[in-house]
Amino acid sequence: MNWITDTAKPIDNKSIDLALARQSTLTKPAGSLGRLEELAVAFSGWQGTEKPIIDTIQIVVFAADHGIATQAVSAFPQQVTVEMIKNFCRGGAAISVLARQLETGFLVVNMGTANETSAMTKLVSEPVAAGTNDFSKTGAMTFEQLQQALLTGADRVNPEAHMFIGGEMGIGNTSSATALGCAYMTKSAADLVGRGSGIDDSTLTRKTQLIDQALDLHAKELINPLSVLQLLGGFEIAALTGAYIRAAQVGVPILVDGFISTAAAIAAVAINPSCRQWMFFSHQSNEQGHRSMLDFLQAKPSLDFGMRLGEGCGAALCVPLIKSACLLQSQMATFEEAAVSEA
Amino acid sequence: MNWITDTAKPIDNKSIDLALARQSTLTKPAGSLGRLEELAVAFSGWQGTEKPIIDTIQIVVFAADHGIATQAVSAFPQQVTVEMIKNFCRGGAAISVLARQLETGFLVVNMGTANETSAMTKLVSEPVAAGTNDFSKTGAMTFEQLQQALLTGADRVNPEAHMFIGGEMGIGNTSSATALGCAYMTKSAADLVGRGSGIDDSTLTRKTQLIDQALDLHAKELINPLSVLQLLGGFEIAALTGAYIRAAQVGVPILVDGFISTAAAIAAVAINPSCRQWMFFSHQSNEQGHRSMLDFLQAKPSLDFGMRLGEGCGAALCVPLIKSACLLQSQMATFEEAAVSEA
Repeated sequence: MNWITDTAKPIDNKSIDLALARQSTLTKPAGSLGRLEELAVAFSGWQGTEKPIIDTIQIVVFAADHGIATQAVSAFPQQVTVEMIKNFCRGGAAISVLARQLETGFLVVNMGTANETSAMTKLVSEPVAAGTNDFSKTGAMTFEQLQQALLTGADRVNPEAHMFIGGEMGIGNTSSATALGCAYMTKSAADLVGRGSGIDDSTLTRKTQLIDQALDLHAKELINPLSVLQLLGGFEIAALTGAYIRAAQVGVPILVDGFISTAAAIAAVAINPSCRQWMFFSHQSNEQGHRSMLDFLQAKPSLDFGMRLGEGCGAALCVPLIKSACLLQSQMATFEEAAVSEA
Repeated sequence: MNWITDTAKPIDNKSIDLALARQSTLTKPAGSLGRLEELAVAFSGWQGTEKPIIDTIQIVVFAADHGIATQAVSAFPQQVTVEMIKNFCRGGAAISVLARQLETGFLVVNMGTANETSAMTKLVSEPVAAGTNDFSKTGAMTFEQLQQALLTGADRVNPEAHMFIGGEMGIGNTSSATALGCAYMTKSAADLVGRGSGIDDSTLTRKTQLIDQALDLHAKELINPLSVLQLLGGFEIAALTGAYIRAAQVGVPILVDGFISTAAAIAAVAINPSCRQWMFFSHQSNEQGHRSMLDFLQAKPSLDFGMRLGEGCGAALCVPLIKSACLLQSQMATFEEAAVSEA
């Protein structure tokens, strides 16, 4: 586990300066591309060039089951985790459709489900166990399981990719993500809990109580960022955390998706703060606690589309916008090249 | 001019109902795709199918000069209008880059500039006159010129396109757009005026005074929606207005860009209210009056990227998001097809 605290690759500040200078020479009023300029300049720092390109996108969806799901904290039954894994692989899920639109492949990594899956194209089986323990009663996983999940996620990162997108699937995982957020941000369940896949009032009350109960149960053992993830996390969330840390270490920008992914981002930053500078944030989820989580990370998402699906969909949706940002910075003519009079 | 008040093509409400029903069967929690669901359902109503597709995008940039520009209301000199027309055609402008990314052609229509342009690929010359008159001193154009500009815009609409995007270029055109907004919305200049291409405080003061002066000068003649456009408009804004009205009449959804385009949308709705239902709005511009204009149209833009470039860029940027929305509604598997358990 020594790898996990290795410092992230440094940002190329010289390329950021060159990019800012280039932006001021392009044929448009200064600053008139707004957030697109910020995104492109950030990519200059990440890629070490004033003309960044985005070609290879890596999308990996981590899936796993959660012990807490047996307490009916979700609107959907637990078998939906494996049913959706099949749906991802067969091309019928939202992330499948978006990956096709982006003309990029994607992988689904089974990190451990309660029900069996069969071999399928796009599916990688790396189960840690048949789901986590119920974190409201005991620790979600052992330290060895945590190490395995983190490393499995990390080893999926392609160091040659221009961007890493992690998605997730796991019935019950908003409960785990909420508990993680509460522990890292020193909040109580009511501050961050939401309706996840669309639960009713009585389920929301039970979910809130179970999370507070878990925070209380584990209070004395939540002593460091890794123990928080071990006791309250999920295998897919730990895999995302490991992937985010590795991506930052090898210099692949991380486009964070929604509520669950942001919980993993908070875990990653808590474990290894240097990885924050390789993260950027795709969308404001409709899950109510997401705004607090983004604020905690001082993150400014690009989209606010009221989405709450997970799977990496919000991040995938942003890819063309980010490509636009980089294409504009790289391909627009300067005032001099185009013989356009300046202001 | 009888054509201009012909009613827009009716929306297919039956397809909207089918689309809403289909959304509830797709493998995701109900409503979890948020705004993407709203966009796709709207396209069902426009295309008359529960599985809308977006393939052919039409982008037309209308360019023209403004008499008011001689009073130095812009940060840029007037020759930039024709210099940017060349830049559009040669591929160096922001809209050129975005159109390439979308793998769609686009046209530039010269509606009348103060300086000469030469023949170029992508350029269509349809000049009404060598720019409008200074609307702070006299009417911007004659009624015959207004008719010509409206019809030129209308005749550019491809009835087979899945979406129409209009862009604009014209030094001084935020002044005209602000004056139009004030007249249609019964505001004074200070309510809507902004820094356009990036003017300083003294220029902003002069711009504000000139617009108020024009509103005062023409007050008695601003008797109907067409006279407002004639007295305060620009040739490119009138062309956009005509294009929007024709697009609605032939059933092509209209993706409105930023501040200038929204002023044209307000003109179009004032002239022919039935065209409103074929419009949707791409982004919240950084130009301060845009928010009031969007509110006036009860419009909810998809992006808030702090852009203020015009050219149709904000609209072009949204195209992949709208394609995503339609692809998801059309291609995602239903719970039944994917054998996924329901909530």
